[in-house]
Amino acid sequence: MTPVAKKPTFIKERIILGIDPGTTIMGYGLIKVENNQPHLLAIGVLELNRYEDHYLRLLKIFNRTLSLIEEFLPDELAIEAPFYGKNVQSMLKLGRAQGTAIAAALTRDIPIFEYAPLRIKQAITGNGRASKEQVADMLKRILHIPEANMLPQLDATDGLAAAYCHFLQTNRPSLEKPYTSWKDYLTKNPSKVK
Amino acid sequence: MTPVAKKPTFIKERIILGIDPGTTIMGYGLIKVENNQPHLLAIGVLELNRYEDHYLRLLKIFNRTLSLIEEFLPDELAIEAPFYGKNVQSMLKLGRAQGTAIAAALTRDIPIFEYAPLRIKQAITGNGRASKEQVADMLKRILHIPEANMLPQLDATDGLAAAYCHFLQTNRPSLEKPYTSWKDYLTKNPSKVK
Repeated sequence: MTPVAKKPTFIKERIILGIDPGTTIMGYGLIKVENNQPHLLAIGVLELNRYEDHYLRLLKIFNRTLSLIEEFLPDELAIEAPFYGKNVQSMLKLGRAQGTAIAAALTRDIPIFEYAPLRIKQAITGNGRASKEQVADMLKRILHIPEANMLPQLDATDGLAAAYCHFLQTNRPSLEKPYTSWKDYLTKNPSKVK
Repeated sequence: MTPVAKKPTFIKERIILGIDPGTTIMGYGLIKVENNQPHLLAIGVLELNRYEDHYLRLLKIFNRTLSLIEEFLPDELAIEAPFYGKNVQSMLKLGRAQGTAIAAALTRDIPIFEYAPLRIKQAITGNGRASKEQVADMLKRILHIPEANMLPQLDATDGLAAAYCHFLQTNRPSLEKPYTSWKDYLTKNPSKVK
């Protein structure tokens, strides 16, 4: 039997995992992008302050990141990554938390993208100095998150904010118009010029 | 057939993996302790400065730590862990390197022990301000390392130094004499007093 010729289906979707790894709490969110439209897949927090042991906290970060990757199969990981901190002690601890989450993604070949908090706030609210409440409120409206699904901890939305920021940074219309002008097209495609 | 009663064998040995994770080089060494005597099992370096990509470096640290654990089955991991650094940027990077190595050990349930550089130098040479050369020379003599096996990079011995420091800290004769005096014994064992 000859197979019936079917019109091919072009699937254009990707899943972004966003996390905000810290030493007392890790916020995370997952976005599915279909036809350039973002949809919320999941949002959550890993509360680390209930564990006394520093290493147990790191293990929890590693395991949760890995289990999110295995459950939702994200194509990319976006991390909220502050580059400045109060002191060297807190930066070392933060680096360990980040390194642990990054290691989990690396073992599954997930590309990683980092965004500074200011850049995330700027991308989402237009204001780099926006409050956590303003960022959460904007995400709630854009992603149509029901009130009941908003977690009381605002840190949860920091992970989601990283994912949404990455979506905005990589889904710009400019990416679909690779040439800025006809002249630009000719410059980039000399073989097309007869 | 009745099994022949054999005198039981008491095995008293443990393997210590020592590492010094950094962002440009990771030194490591393995010690096997048999009957309270340390023996060198392996020494090596992972040169990271040949990789441009920050994430590739972290992945290399994770994979090498894991492969050392799987090859030598260490009972404990000793890490050289500076707690102070020049600036927050370098501490964040160092924290990421440490977190990645720690994550590898945590996934294999290896207990982790951290030692500050000053404490390692103090334990091995008696001088917290000893040079890398002095530490390397002392290790070479104590562990009978042939000259040919000494790596040109002194950083290699930093990992081994962490392992040897951990051995010294946990193998002290005091651990084998749990009571400091007869009075101490009576205090700790009130049921023995009639």
